[in-house]
Amino acid sequence: MTAEQQLVDAALRAWKFNTDRFEAFYRDLSDVQLDLEVAPGRNRLRYLLGHMAAVHDKMIALLGAGPRLHAELDEAFLSNPDRSVSSSLSGAELKEIWSEVDGALWGAISKWSAVEWLSKHTAVTDEEFAKEPHRNRLSVLLSRNSHIATHYGQVILTTPRG
Amino acid sequence: MTAEQQLVDAALRAWKFNTDRFEAFYRDLSDVQLDLEVAPGRNRLRYLLGHMAAVHDKMIALLGAGPRLHAELDEAFLSNPDRSVSSSLSGAELKEIWSEVDGALWGAISKWSAVEWLSKHTAVTDEEFAKEPHRNRLSVLLSRNSHIATHYGQVILTTPRG
Repeated sequence: MTAEQQLVDAALRAWKFNTDRFEAFYRDLSDVQLDLEVAPGRNRLRYLLGHMAAVHDKMIALLGAGPRLHAELDEAFLSNPDRSVSSSLSGAELKEIWSEVDGALWGAISKWSAVEWLSKHTAVTDEEFAKEPHRNRLSVLLSRNSHIATHYGQVILTTPRG
Repeated sequence: MTAEQQLVDAALRAWKFNTDRFEAFYRDLSDVQLDLEVAPGRNRLRYLLGHMAAVHDKMIALLGAGPRLHAELDEAFLSNPDRSVSSSLSGAELKEIWSEVDGALWGAISKWSAVEWLSKHTAVTDEEFAKEPHRNRLSVLLSRNSHIATHYGQVILTTPRG
């Protein structure tokens, strides 16, 4: 691998680490367990699963990796706080959507070269990008990696040693 | 900037984002507020501040950026859970140590080239590194970046809209 490839590889490994542990956390949870709150009166596990699926689904389009798959998640899991909009999705359905989104995203981004990572994302204009080249796809990946780690820190509080 | 420099720059910006928001969260907290728990019976804010200072202090040595500064933190904030070993450090002292460690770390790492980031960290042998070149300094930075984001997600649960 070239130095550029190694630098990208490190970022992808960090992404995989965070998405894998998030998925592993939820894998065996029942619908009853998904109603647990991370702290009294705060987000339920169910909401944070839908929230992460919605954010990563939007990220597919933000990175220019293709059209998003589940825009219907936004109302219940992104634009509004937990408990304000009801969703008919079961825990099993939410987990399936998460896996589908995660797989689609990984399928696209795991193949990109350094040049592709340093290209602009779709929410920045050519003019803005000329002045601020750090607003590239890699910055989106690293920002969303912090985002999922932040919520992971919350969901593990529902476990005995989280 | 070369492509290599841009890739490193993205990782450093992500690091700065997480350490800055962590520091900003704690900046104005009183000693009374530092005794708040992130969830009932879980770590206090005080412990997580000392914990992050200890982990980043160890990271100075792990990255080969110099000797660590505050090994005395480990017993109360790293090797043992909250409330099991008492510390005489006040909130103001803990914040000062955090800033000192954060500044020392940033002073070293913000100057490194891509080649330096792709060098091995100090907890891997030459033989291991020859087989697993992804165990480089950048992997440590990205891993610790996920770590601080994880705890940030917890500490903000003590605020009204965390």
